[in-house]
Amino acid sequence: MVNLTMLTDFYQLTMMDGYLKSDKKDEIMIFDMFYRKNPNDGGYTIVCGINEVIDYIENLKFEEEDIQYLKSLNTFDEEFLQYLRDFKFDGEIYAVEEGTIMFPNEPIIRVKAKAMQAQLVETTILCIINFQTLIATKASRICYSAMGDSVMEFGLRRAQAPDAGLYGAKAAVIGGCIGTSNVLAGQKFDIPVLGTHAHSWIQSFDTELDAFRAYAKAYPTKTVLLLDTYDTLNSGIRNAITVFNELREQGYEPLGVRIDSGDLEFLSKEIRKILDSAGFENVKITASNDLDENTITSLKNQGAQIDIWGVGTKMITSFDWAALGGVYKLCAVVRDGQMIPKIKISEDPNKINNPGYKNIYRIYDKNDNKAKADLIVLDEEVINENEPLTIFDPIHTWKKMTFEDFYVKKLLLPLFIDGKCVREKRDIKDIKRYTDEEKESFWIQYRRNKNPQIYKVDLSKKLWNMKNDLLENRNIL
Amino acid sequence: MVNLTMLTDFYQLTMMDGYLKSDKKDEIMIFDMFYRKNPNDGGYTIVCGINEVIDYIENLKFEEEDIQYLKSLNTFDEEFLQYLRDFKFDGEIYAVEEGTIMFPNEPIIRVKAKAMQAQLVETTILCIINFQTLIATKASRICYSAMGDSVMEFGLRRAQAPDAGLYGAKAAVIGGCIGTSNVLAGQKFDIPVLGTHAHSWIQSFDTELDAFRAYAKAYPTKTVLLLDTYDTLNSGIRNAITVFNELREQGYEPLGVRIDSGDLEFLSKEIRKILDSAGFENVKITASNDLDENTITSLKNQGAQIDIWGVGTKMITSFDWAALGGVYKLCAVVRDGQMIPKIKISEDPNKINNPGYKNIYRIYDKNDNKAKADLIVLDEEVINENEPLTIFDPIHTWKKMTFEDFYVKKLLLPLFIDGKCVREKRDIKDIKRYTDEEKESFWIQYRRNKNPQIYKVDLSKKLWNMKNDLLENRNIL
Repeated sequence: MVNLTMLTDFYQLTMMDGYLKSDKKDEIMIFDMFYRKNPNDGGYTIVCGINEVIDYIENLKFEEEDIQYLKSLNTFDEEFLQYLRDFKFDGEIYAVEEGTIMFPNEPIIRVKAKAMQAQLVETTILCIINFQTLIATKASRICYSAMGDSVMEFGLRRAQAPDAGLYGAKAAVIGGCIGTSNVLAGQKFDIPVLGTHAHSWIQSFDTELDAFRAYAKAYPTKTVLLLDTYDTLNSGIRNAITVFNELREQGYEPLGVRIDSGDLEFLSKEIRKILDSAGFENVKITASNDLDENTITSLKNQGAQIDIWGVGTKMITSFDWAALGGVYKLCAVVRDGQMIPKIKISEDPNKINNPGYKNIYRIYDKNDNKAKADLIVLDEEVINENEPLTIFDPIHTWKKMTFEDFYVKKLLLPLFIDGKCVREKRDIKDIKRYTDEEKESFWIQYRRNKNPQIYKVDLSKKLWNMKNDLLENRNIL
Repeated sequence: MVNLTMLTDFYQLTMMDGYLKSDKKDEIMIFDMFYRKNPNDGGYTIVCGINEVIDYIENLKFEEEDIQYLKSLNTFDEEFLQYLRDFKFDGEIYAVEEGTIMFPNEPIIRVKAKAMQAQLVETTILCIINFQTLIATKASRICYSAMGDSVMEFGLRRAQAPDAGLYGAKAAVIGGCIGTSNVLAGQKFDIPVLGTHAHSWIQSFDTELDAFRAYAKAYPTKTVLLLDTYDTLNSGIRNAITVFNELREQGYEPLGVRIDSGDLEFLSKEIRKILDSAGFENVKITASNDLDENTITSLKNQGAQIDIWGVGTKMITSFDWAALGGVYKLCAVVRDGQMIPKIKISEDPNKINNPGYKNIYRIYDKNDNKAKADLIVLDEEVINENEPLTIFDPIHTWKKMTFEDFYVKKLLLPLFIDGKCVREKRDIKDIKRYTDEEKESFWIQYRRNKNPQIYKVDLSKKLWNMKNDLLENRNIL
C-alpha cells in the first residue's frame, strides 16, 4: 500500500490547525470506530481491513510535495506546515482481530492519541474498514446461500476502481470464497486465482468446436468449457461432450463446464443429464450471471444442478447495500490526567454514541463454546468468570439475563502502543481460518440471511450510568 | 497511477497462453467497450476515466516479480512467461473524449490489437471506465436535482476503498460538483478542496460556544459553523449568532452554517429566519446527511432554504445503482487482411452485440446546435452533410427520421496508434468545461432524472444488414 497520508478530508487538516492554534495540540482524545446497522438487514458483520490499517498508520508521513501543495491552498501558516513536516503518529490503537464477527454500535477500532493525530486518521481508517468489512460480510452471506458449494469472486471489472477490486477480492476470500479471478489479488495476498476463458475465445475461432478443442489442447488437465456463446443446449454442451470424449481418449479427464446466461435452473439440470448420460458424472457445472445470495437461494430451492458459483458485480460492490456506514466518534478526552467522557446528542436515539474509554467482552457458554451475548464495558472493568453475571437491555432495562457457566473474551486488543505496531500482520489464510471459527462460534439463528435473530449487545451498569448521566445533565451547551 | 498490469482476470492470461499455443498470437482482434443500461434508469451517462486508461496502457509491463509469481502457479510454460517478459502494447485504441455524454450500446472505447494484447487489457479498462462513468453520471444527476445550487463531494470515508475515493472525487467534479473534501484528490487533480470542522471539534471543547469561538479565531475569514452537535435550534444557531456578531465587531463577515442531521426542510427555514433577522442575510446554509438526487429534489420542492449541498455516501458509491455494468465484446477479427465481423448471440436480444469495426456519428441540428440522434456506423462510412440523411429504428424499422439542416461529429477518436498515445491528457478543469458544454448540447428532456425521453441511437443500413446477416446465417456453430 502506498502512502495514504493525504487521503483524508480537508476538515481534518483545518481542525488540526485549529487545535494547534487553540493550544489543544497535546490534549489526548479517544475515538471509537463503529457502525450502526448491519448491511442488508443481516445479523452481523465480519470485520476486515485491519492489516491495511496497520500499513496506513506505519506509513503516515507528509512528504515535502504534500506540504507544498497544502501551502498553495493559502489556508495554513508556516507553524502548521512545520508541524505536518514533523508529524508522527505516537498514539495508541486497539482493534478487534481481523475476521471477528461484530454487531452494531460495538467499537471495532479505538484510537487514543493527541487530538491532531487522532483526528487525521479518521477518514482513512473509515475508508479501509467500511469497504472491506462490507465485502467480507456480503461474501459471507453469499457463501451461506450456496450451502457448502464453492463460490468464486469474479467482480474485478465491475469493482469501484482498482483498489476495490484488489481489497474486495481479499475480503471476499476472508468472507468465504475459495478464490478470485483477480491476478493482482492472488499475487499480493497469496490467495487462489481462478478462471478459464471468455466468450471472446469462442468467437475468435471459426467454430465453437475449434475453440473448445484449442482450449482442451492448451489445458488438457484443466479443461473447463464455456457453453453459452451461441446456444447452450443445441451447440455448447454437444460440442463440449465431443471434446470431453476426445480428451478422455487421450487419457485426460475434463473438469467442468460453465454457463453465464439463460435460465440457470433449467439449463443446469439439462446439462447435468446430458453430462451424466455421456459418462461425465464428475464434470462440475459452474454458473455465473448477476448472482447474489437471493438468486442463489432461489436456485438452490429449485434444485438447480450447480456445483460452483461465480459471483461478480453484486458481491464486489455489495450492490444492494453499497456502504457500511461506519463512523468514528469522539467518546472521551483526557485533560490534566483525567478521563472526561464525551457524547454526541441527537434527536434520533440511534445516533447517540456510547461515551467513555471502552472495551467489549464476548460471553461464551462453557458447555458448547457458543457466544451468548456481548457486553460493552469501560476499559477498566473486569469480569469475574467465577461469579454469576447479570446483564440487562440498555433500553428495556427490565429485560435481564444471567450467565453462570461462562467464560469471556475481550475483543479490543492492542494494535499500536506509543505509535509502535504491536501486532503482527496475519496472512489471509490465517484470517480466513479464524473467520470460519468465528462463524462456528455463533448459532445459525444469528447467521441466516433473512430476519436473523438479533444478537444481544448490552452495556455494563457503569457504562449505562455514565451515558445516562451525560444525557440528563447536558451542561455542555 | 501505479503499474496495473497484473490487475486483470486470470482467464485473460489463460486465454493469452491459449492463443500463443493455437498460433493466433498475431491475429488482430477488435473489441468494443460499451454498456447496456443507463444507471438509475436515467437518460444518459457521462464518460469518465479516459486519462486513467492512458496511464494504464502506457505503464503496461510485467515485472520480473510478476513473472515469478505467475510461474509459481504451475500453469504457464517458459514460452508464455518469456512472451510476457517482452510484452508491449502496440495496438490501436479509439475512445470518446472524457466527459462525453453517451448512451446504451454505443462503443465508448474500441481496441484493435493482436489477440493477446486486446484480451489482456479488457478487465482494467472496464474497471476504470465503469466506475468513473458511474460516479460522473450520478454526480450529474445530483447536481441536476440541486438546480444550480453548489454541490460538494464529501464521500471519501464511505468510498469503496482508497482509489474509489480518489477517482470518485475526480468523477464527481467532472459530473458537476464544485469540489471535494478529499485532500489527495485536490492535490492530484487540482480541484478545489472544501470543509471546515466535525462534531468532534465541538465536543472536544467544554462548551459549544468555546468551540465556535476557537474556530472563528483560527479562520476569521472562512468561518462556517456546524450547528447540530447538541441541539440545532436551541443551542447551535444561537451560539453561532453570538460568534458571528463578535466576528463582525472585529471586522470579519461570517460565511456559513452547516446542518448534518434532523429535518433539513424545517431546520433550514428556521435557521434562515434567525440568520436574516440577526442581520446575516449573506450567511449560506450548507446541508448534509445521506443526501441523493431524490432527497434533494424533495427538499427543493418544499422550499428548503439550503444553499449548498454536501453529498457523501450516496454519490461516491452510487448507492442505489452501484455498478455501470459495462462490457467489452469481440466485434471483429482480421484474418489475412480481411475484417471478419463477430457476434455474440443470446436468447436475450438486448445482449446481442453490434458486430464490425465501428464508429458513431452524432447528428446536430444546424439551427440550435442541439444533438438530435446518434448513428452507429461501420468505420469506413462517411456522411455527406449536404444531402438529407434518413435513419431508422433498428427494431421498429418503419420508424424513420430525416435530417436536412444538420452537421455531424464523429465520437470515437484516436487514443493510441501503434501503441503510442496520440492524445494529450486533459486537465480536470478542461474536462469539466467540456462536460458542461456536452450537457448544454442536449435538450433537457434527455437529462431529467425521472422518466427521461429516450435519445435515439440507430444503426446505419450497412451495419444493420451486417448484423442481420450474422443472425440469420449462423454457420459459426
